[in-house]
Amino acid sequence: MLSRSALILTLGALMSVSAWAQAAPAETEVVNFTLDNGLEVVVIPDRRAPIVTHMVWYKVGSADELPGKSGIAHFLEHLMFKGTARHPAGEMDRLIAEVGGYTNAFTTKDVTVYHQTVPPDVLDEMMDFEADRMRGLVLTEDVIGAERDVVLEERRMRVEVSPQALLAEETAATAYQNHPYRIPTIGWLHEMEQLNRADAVAFYDRYYAPNNAVLVVSGDVEPEAVRELAEDTYGMVPRGPDLPPRIRPSEPQYDTARSVTLSDPRVGVPSFARGWITPSYRVAEPGEAEALDLLSEILGGGLRSRFYQEIVVKAGIASEVGASYDGGAYDPSSFTMFGVPQGAHSLEEVEAAIDAQVLRVIEDGVTPAELDAAKMRYVRSLIFARDEQASMANIYGSRLANDGTVDDVTQWPDRIRAVTPEQVQAVAARYLDPKVSVTGYLLPSDNGAQ
Amino acid sequence: MLSRSALILTLGALMSVSAWAQAAPAETEVVNFTLDNGLEVVVIPDRRAPIVTHMVWYKVGSADELPGKSGIAHFLEHLMFKGTARHPAGEMDRLIAEVGGYTNAFTTKDVTVYHQTVPPDVLDEMMDFEADRMRGLVLTEDVIGAERDVVLEERRMRVEVSPQALLAEETAATAYQNHPYRIPTIGWLHEMEQLNRADAVAFYDRYYAPNNAVLVVSGDVEPEAVRELAEDTYGMVPRGPDLPPRIRPSEPQYDTARSVTLSDPRVGVPSFARGWITPSYRVAEPGEAEALDLLSEILGGGLRSRFYQEIVVKAGIASEVGASYDGGAYDPSSFTMFGVPQGAHSLEEVEAAIDAQVLRVIEDGVTPAELDAAKMRYVRSLIFARDEQASMANIYGSRLANDGTVDDVTQWPDRIRAVTPEQVQAVAARYLDPKVSVTGYLLPSDNGAQ
Repeated sequence: MLSRSALILTLGALMSVSAWAQAAPAETEVVNFTLDNGLEVVVIPDRRAPIVTHMVWYKVGSADELPGKSGIAHFLEHLMFKGTARHPAGEMDRLIAEVGGYTNAFTTKDVTVYHQTVPPDVLDEMMDFEADRMRGLVLTEDVIGAERDVVLEERRMRVEVSPQALLAEETAATAYQNHPYRIPTIGWLHEMEQLNRADAVAFYDRYYAPNNAVLVVSGDVEPEAVRELAEDTYGMVPRGPDLPPRIRPSEPQYDTARSVTLSDPRVGVPSFARGWITPSYRVAEPGEAEALDLLSEILGGGLRSRFYQEIVVKAGIASEVGASYDGGAYDPSSFTMFGVPQGAHSLEEVEAAIDAQVLRVIEDGVTPAELDAAKMRYVRSLIFARDEQASMANIYGSRLANDGTVDDVTQWPDRIRAVTPEQVQAVAARYLDPKVSVTGYLLPSDNGAQ
Repeated sequence: MLSRSALILTLGALMSVSAWAQAAPAETEVVNFTLDNGLEVVVIPDRRAPIVTHMVWYKVGSADELPGKSGIAHFLEHLMFKGTARHPAGEMDRLIAEVGGYTNAFTTKDVTVYHQTVPPDVLDEMMDFEADRMRGLVLTEDVIGAERDVVLEERRMRVEVSPQALLAEETAATAYQNHPYRIPTIGWLHEMEQLNRADAVAFYDRYYAPNNAVLVVSGDVEPEAVRELAEDTYGMVPRGPDLPPRIRPSEPQYDTARSVTLSDPRVGVPSFARGWITPSYRVAEPGEAEALDLLSEILGGGLRSRFYQEIVVKAGIASEVGASYDGGAYDPSSFTMFGVPQGAHSLEEVEAAIDAQVLRVIEDGVTPAELDAAKMRYVRSLIFARDEQASMANIYGSRLANDGTVDDVTQWPDRIRAVTPEQVQAVAARYLDPKVSVTGYLLPSDNGAQ
């Protein structure tokens, strides 16, 4: 029920991909090496089934776009399927379909990722395809216009028709005053309409190269065989230009509480989401990101959380509540909580109840017993994630594409277990100041006038 | 009383310089020409007193800064006083002081301006100085650190100590989601601290050149003599690099009402300011900017305005009210209104009263009589502006630095007079939608905790 909230989309926009925060370290022997051209490779053997997941993570996302060019990272993700001199458009998709495989791609604020899950005997062809389009993409004028129409339609269907998505966009744009996380990954409509071939080629030439990517292969494979295949395919791709340090404009200090209100006749039940910008794992002081993850678990991480027990079960004033922390982002990202009133109760009551629970942690801390329970649930979720091959690949890819190491992943459960109640109270007090929060309100309205 | 409101600073941050919107066309013969190196020159003869105002307007402001380099435009304004090979630091200031003159400089979102008001017999020396530092500035490492401390102190004194200024900054950062007008001209503190010599030199080399500037000379001078002086001084400065079209990232469509709240123990009486982003003169459809100027005059332009008469005088619930329109910006900028409650009346009452007045214009329009009165007041203010030499120079410099022409200035009163009541109602309905406004609240608080 919690995860089905209409507000998930709202929260989503405040967050970049956080898949890695959901998953777990492998106990199998993970092999990690770098090719001469700078491509980092991770191999995660997993022999339970004769399948292999092959992913290329480019260290570029929408937060790396030039001002005025929003949407170019995601647009280029689409254009990457338009073919090369050696492999015309559609050839890879047909092969994957023939062998019963699966392929997809996605763009976040920080990364652009291409992946296939296939039988091991076509892994070499996947590598050949991906290596070929890493520098060899052919972009003609006629594919640009047609594909731009496709991404514009994607924006219309995902954002323009959805009050939740529109509110999410404008809440993110309000939460971030300086950092490019304020800009939607799909792009602002009026800027997407202007994207052209020159923009796409410039972005591709700059960011698509072996020295700006991480290759992850997870599944029924031998690491040494993967290394040989990688050298024969990706190893042939020339190194790209050296990129400057990946430093985006950072946020100023905040002094204000801000709100964003969308009133829309399509909204049935009111809801709200309140967020703060908090350090991600990459940039946090030691222990703080782990404490924020556990704080999120204790406050709003499911049926055992304080929000659910106190506000939904005992007080009966909310139908949905939750909290989430986006520790997987490259730069500081969001800690968010949300609520939906139950029956005749008002949104203000739910807000006050959630605020009271936050204040309770700030003032009185958490108990050792509930922290232990939260750690157990969290570490168990990491272990469960091992059970799915693609989620393991996701964990490693996301972590390594964000400057992390294999050890960061394998030591994660121990770092979670080391968090103290004092650390949880300290991050709540430090980061969840109501005077500097950003709140999005989604309200019903009878018509478009007010 | 209105103009002394504590909220002026709040409003100020939503606005870029609007000096030209306050002033008037000259009836004297204005002479306008361009030197071979691209420097545009305007001479405005005014022989009432033996003084001359000399201004150089560079077409660069804080909205032209690179992401992450906020404050560099203003920092460079300071550094421009650090001397050249021919004229060491302080020489110009000493000369101006000796002759009883006056000198200053300022930076806005759109322009950086240097001006002197002096006796005509030292105009040639002013021109020599300004032409010399247009490309000849010498920036050594040792002046950088010291002057950075000066601008950091300026930020502390102007912004950090002032709840009004802090609220103004964060309201602007909330109002603009994509356009660089969201960034304060003085810079974000953490980015100012990192500004260095390389940043300053790069900015100077790119933007300080005759082909990116407008020279304005107003006063007791002969246009032909000014032309000869200009050719002998500025004419010797080599043309700078060609700059690309000045296109900043523009705003997406808005769907939400947003608010920013600062609670501070230093605040005595609560107040609020509500703004919308509206087209400036440069980009508005014909007649819309003039109608917005008159709408601002009718709603909140002084003691005769609807806000003042209805809310302060008749209802007695506000002590201060006002409205302002920033038509002089390069890109779309703000239309703002504000209010302060009187006695025991609440901020909510004042807000509701102001909203009701706006709604009244949207629904019922304005009367021909009050529009005529507003036009008369507006045009008279343009005429009064002629009385001060420096404000005439300001009008022309600001207009020409924003891609305008001398005719734009001289025809302005006629364009104001041509506005119809229907046009005023139409811009109110089109631009002042309460569903997409941004409101800043400045509230007292007993302590720093809530």
